[in-house]
Amino acid sequence: MRNNRLLLKSRPAGIPGPEHFEADSVDIRPLQDGELLTETVYISIDPAMRSWISAAPGYVPTVAVGATMRAGGIARVLESRAPGFVAGDWVQGRVNWESHPILRGTQTQKLDLTIASPEDWIGPLGTSALTAYFGMRDIGGLRPGDRVLVSGAAGGVGQIAVQIALLEGCRVVGIAGGAEKCAYLRDELQPHGVIDYKAEPDLGAAIARECPDGVDLYFDNVGGPTLDAALANLRMRGRVTLCGRISQTVAAEPYAIRNLGMLSGRRGRMGGFIVFDYHDRYPEARAWLSYHLRAGRLKQRLHVVEGLDRAPEALGMLFRGGNTGKLVVRVGER
Amino acid sequence: MRNNRLLLKSRPAGIPGPEHFEADSVDIRPLQDGELLTETVYISIDPAMRSWISAAPGYVPTVAVGATMRAGGIARVLESRAPGFVAGDWVQGRVNWESHPILRGTQTQKLDLTIASPEDWIGPLGTSALTAYFGMRDIGGLRPGDRVLVSGAAGGVGQIAVQIALLEGCRVVGIAGGAEKCAYLRDELQPHGVIDYKAEPDLGAAIARECPDGVDLYFDNVGGPTLDAALANLRMRGRVTLCGRISQTVAAEPYAIRNLGMLSGRRGRMGGFIVFDYHDRYPEARAWLSYHLRAGRLKQRLHVVEGLDRAPEALGMLFRGGNTGKLVVRVGER
Repeated sequence: MRNNRLLLKSRPAGIPGPEHFEADSVDIRPLQDGELLTETVYISIDPAMRSWISAAPGYVPTVAVGATMRAGGIARVLESRAPGFVAGDWVQGRVNWESHPILRGTQTQKLDLTIASPEDWIGPLGTSALTAYFGMRDIGGLRPGDRVLVSGAAGGVGQIAVQIALLEGCRVVGIAGGAEKCAYLRDELQPHGVIDYKAEPDLGAAIARECPDGVDLYFDNVGGPTLDAALANLRMRGRVTLCGRISQTVAAEPYAIRNLGMLSGRRGRMGGFIVFDYHDRYPEARAWLSYHLRAGRLKQRLHVVEGLDRAPEALGMLFRGGNTGKLVVRVGER
Repeated sequence: MRNNRLLLKSRPAGIPGPEHFEADSVDIRPLQDGELLTETVYISIDPAMRSWISAAPGYVPTVAVGATMRAGGIARVLESRAPGFVAGDWVQGRVNWESHPILRGTQTQKLDLTIASPEDWIGPLGTSALTAYFGMRDIGGLRPGDRVLVSGAAGGVGQIAVQIALLEGCRVVGIAGGAEKCAYLRDELQPHGVIDYKAEPDLGAAIARECPDGVDLYFDNVGGPTLDAALANLRMRGRVTLCGRISQTVAAEPYAIRNLGMLSGRRGRMGGFIVFDYHDRYPEARAWLSYHLRAGRLKQRLHVVEGLDRAPEALGMLFRGGNTGKLVVRVGER
């Protein structure tokens, strides 16, 4: 049995793809104390991965050229020399782009399948959902009755953000690109309004139409012109959660924001965050999320790409907006 | 005795000046109950006045063409039919651009000259100082030891903001334009660093040089490229107080901000505010300011322009950055 993996071959200038990675295969070495041999089942494909493979230092170290691509995901334990884990356990951890990663028990979380399925653990209880939870509540100061606008609303974070706001009694409008994503929002998540930004000649006017009283809380997954259009519609004491800026991650020329002045006249607040800072409070977020999940009130769509070798293609799809729902690569059998 | 006043003649496209106002003189009408006849001594010249004479609605109604220009200031009571006021009292209120405004007692504040001089009441105890106080503390979350950067540091709000941060035990760097303003900062207020933005080819590099550990709190009076340069130097969990954007008020083409992404990676916060929202807490701010003022720890410079007829010229000077210290027009004898 060998560990198949994908290494970073070169740093992309724009959208990453198969040309930036190369496949490789190594023998699986014997385990040391505290380690687990696992088989990857799902790899999470996230916007932050783009910054990990850029030359500029981000909030975590970049992946070196020639090194295995970093990724989080869900795996099954094949062999354990770590206390508290046995073969057959499901775990969550840094599986990287590897078929058979060796994980450290102290850095790996065992999944409680009596609470939720492995798919739930990568979706409504996963990092994307935690990001939506803390971004909405702590950064955005979500309050019942808020008029909430979410961009990237059909994505991994956005779909949970929309539902968190709905479950708090807010009026929610989601922005997504294309008919399929908007149909998913309209039919499945059912916010109060849906905007297909690709079909709107004037996004600011579209937001004004769908949010006629303005926006108390804008949860921003995309940045760029969408952020500017949302700022123009901010209500008094409106808040902006800067969660992601996927439109800018691969932009050749960064979009320059013009409507920051709205924050003064409207007494607005804007804040960014990194979900890992909230590690100590993950149990709180998972208590809320799993409560609503068990009650059938929290839906998700997984967008599954089959096969480790297609991970680079999936990463490119993320930046082209090709996924509806949380994007994952399925590596091993379920 | 007549009331000399200046009316708005036309709305400026850029920097306002004498061509946008016209002089006028009217008989002083008899007082009604609750009113005061006053003689204006100082008129405060503030950046917000530009938005008052623009066509776009701001956070207060615009001044109509043909109406008297709105302004706050300090006056002496000549005659009173308002309870609690007698001739000879000093007051603060909406004196407008008038030599002998009639004020309503309920909207006018009597000045306690046992606490501070009339010049102090328009400076370190005036609206500019209150703006600095709430912008630093409530919006900026000022904490002792913070590395603080203030733009427009030699202006009415900035000079107080610099001193508030110094009095809280912060490391403070001020940005101003030109040798005179920078000399005032260096010699009188003595922050840890001074940047003359007009003499720096690369403002971001200058901030990095003067703030080698980065910026915990940026107090922004100017907006535009200075805001962008400050964002590039933000520390982890850094905060930005959007107090003013004088560089943008009269800009033909608004400057577009590129470094907002720093708020995400650095977990930053940015907020705007309007000082009038804090009206209920003015006594708190004045208690702090007057305490330090009496102890000789709060300095100010007034930049005095002589004569009501020169008020339009003073307003233009404000947007050209011509004043060092709090800009006022002296109308009546002291």
